[in-house]
Amino acid sequence: MTEKLPKIAVIGLGLIGSSIIHAAKLFGAAEKITGFDSSMEVVKEAKDLGLPVTLVDDIGVAVSDADIVFLAVPVGVMAEVVKQIASNLKPGAILTDTGSTKRSVISDITPLISDNISFVPGHPLAGTEFSGPSSGFSTLFKDHYWLLIGREKTKKPTSVIAKFCERLGAIVEVMDADYHDKILAITSHLPHLIAFTIVGTASDLENDLKNDVIRFSASGFRDFTRIASSDPTMWRDVFLNNDEAVLEMLQRFTEDLGYLQRAINQGEGAILLNLFKRTREIRRSIIDVGFAKK
Amino acid sequence: MTEKLPKIAVIGLGLIGSSIIHAAKLFGAAEKITGFDSSMEVVKEAKDLGLPVTLVDDIGVAVSDADIVFLAVPVGVMAEVVKQIASNLKPGAILTDTGSTKRSVISDITPLISDNISFVPGHPLAGTEFSGPSSGFSTLFKDHYWLLIGREKTKKPTSVIAKFCERLGAIVEVMDADYHDKILAITSHLPHLIAFTIVGTASDLENDLKNDVIRFSASGFRDFTRIASSDPTMWRDVFLNNDEAVLEMLQRFTEDLGYLQRAINQGEGAILLNLFKRTREIRRSIIDVGFAKK
Repeated sequence: MTEKLPKIAVIGLGLIGSSIIHAAKLFGAAEKITGFDSSMEVVKEAKDLGLPVTLVDDIGVAVSDADIVFLAVPVGVMAEVVKQIASNLKPGAILTDTGSTKRSVISDITPLISDNISFVPGHPLAGTEFSGPSSGFSTLFKDHYWLLIGREKTKKPTSVIAKFCERLGAIVEVMDADYHDKILAITSHLPHLIAFTIVGTASDLENDLKNDVIRFSASGFRDFTRIASSDPTMWRDVFLNNDEAVLEMLQRFTEDLGYLQRAINQGEGAILLNLFKRTREIRRSIIDVGFAKK
Repeated sequence: MTEKLPKIAVIGLGLIGSSIIHAAKLFGAAEKITGFDSSMEVVKEAKDLGLPVTLVDDIGVAVSDADIVFLAVPVGVMAEVVKQIASNLKPGAILTDTGSTKRSVISDITPLISDNISFVPGHPLAGTEFSGPSSGFSTLFKDHYWLLIGREKTKKPTSVIAKFCERLGAIVEVMDADYHDKILAITSHLPHLIAFTIVGTASDLENDLKNDVIRFSASGFRDFTRIASSDPTMWRDVFLNNDEAVLEMLQRFTEDLGYLQRAINQGEGAILLNLFKRTREIRRSIIDVGFAKK
């Protein structure tokens, strides 16, 4: 007996949405894939690329036949999108999302869907600094974590989504939303905020100096500019929707930075050396768990 | 007539020193290469690797025959090293260094050398997060800038060093020390300080959370841990010796970060979006000048 594959709908054809489509096609994970994007420009780009998906003009029609609906849109518009599709979802359908914040998405979406729809919040820890359909590729999720938020009443739908994500090459981990938002605040959101800030600081320098900063951007700054070129709308929404955890981590970071500022000002080399030795160890831990090159 | 190649001595056999040796050998840039390191462990590593250099136990002997002496040691020990070699330098020899700060190195070294020695301060904008002789390689400098500090009385020696660096594949730029230290504060020193700080902040988290931060280190944090695993001693010395420029840039950065903190706290999305669009442009400028992938 061959396993029955799900029909899926992908809302949002950016980096993540288009990669889900590519991967589902490559790994034969779906019986049928329909896609929708609210931007005409994005739809045209997807068509021109020959993205392997049935593009549908009407968002309600796009989801009406789907067993699984992926919301791959900025977290700030999740509620708006769900309002447009809630009444078109097939009874028994599973709704999942790929947003970088989870508490906000859960509180935005949960009140909008009926009891015969299961919502499994998700977040693939995969991405690049590029955006749009042309940036997607089929192996984006390979060997990357895909976090799912587990709840008692969605045990079975969670395992369906988990299986689907694993087919795309991902490693699934189930955790709760608070913990997710805290982890992401320190591993992703705060690093992005800092990178945006320092690149902004550099761009405010007087013109000659700024041009030479660009010209002589040594490895440190260049890495930051890559991070700071990530999708502006997505990141605005992340900071507004994970504000609590981000502000808490930012507070700790600012205190630690103040401590180093004082050490430099006072010429206290031992404080600097001790920290730098400690941070080197963290890198070794990351290499030990085998994810440093990904 | 074939050009006469210089005899060179390399003091310090870490990432930079060993790369100079590899590159000089590969590109046939030197008639003879002698090397010295104060650490027995490093010397042993260099021997075991078969680093293509004549290793000498006595630092005075190592430099006595050299036309060019490279000081590839942390900026905090430049003065001490020069005290040990000053009386052994050949009249007419050129002394150059590879330190990341230039004002401090100039004020440390200048009073220690006699008039028949030329000092050409230098700084190759090349490196990795690894250290020690085994991390060096012959193409480290290829297509990377090598900054030299130009002064009226060292015009000819500066052109000799420039030619040598170009043979190793580098692009030479001559500038003044103040400007160098300011550029590096923003492109390299502050990014490193921030990366050290955030990785330190993460390492102070309670144990479970810390382990999961390591496990789920998304791209942002992972890039920071790489930067924060750079050589501790070298970086302590950088911050203590370029304190003025680093603290000035840190002040600007901290103000900018406070502004974003407030924007997040107040839910002012437009401020965030405007900045993120602006930082994306900076990345484009860097890609335009063709150095983004290096």
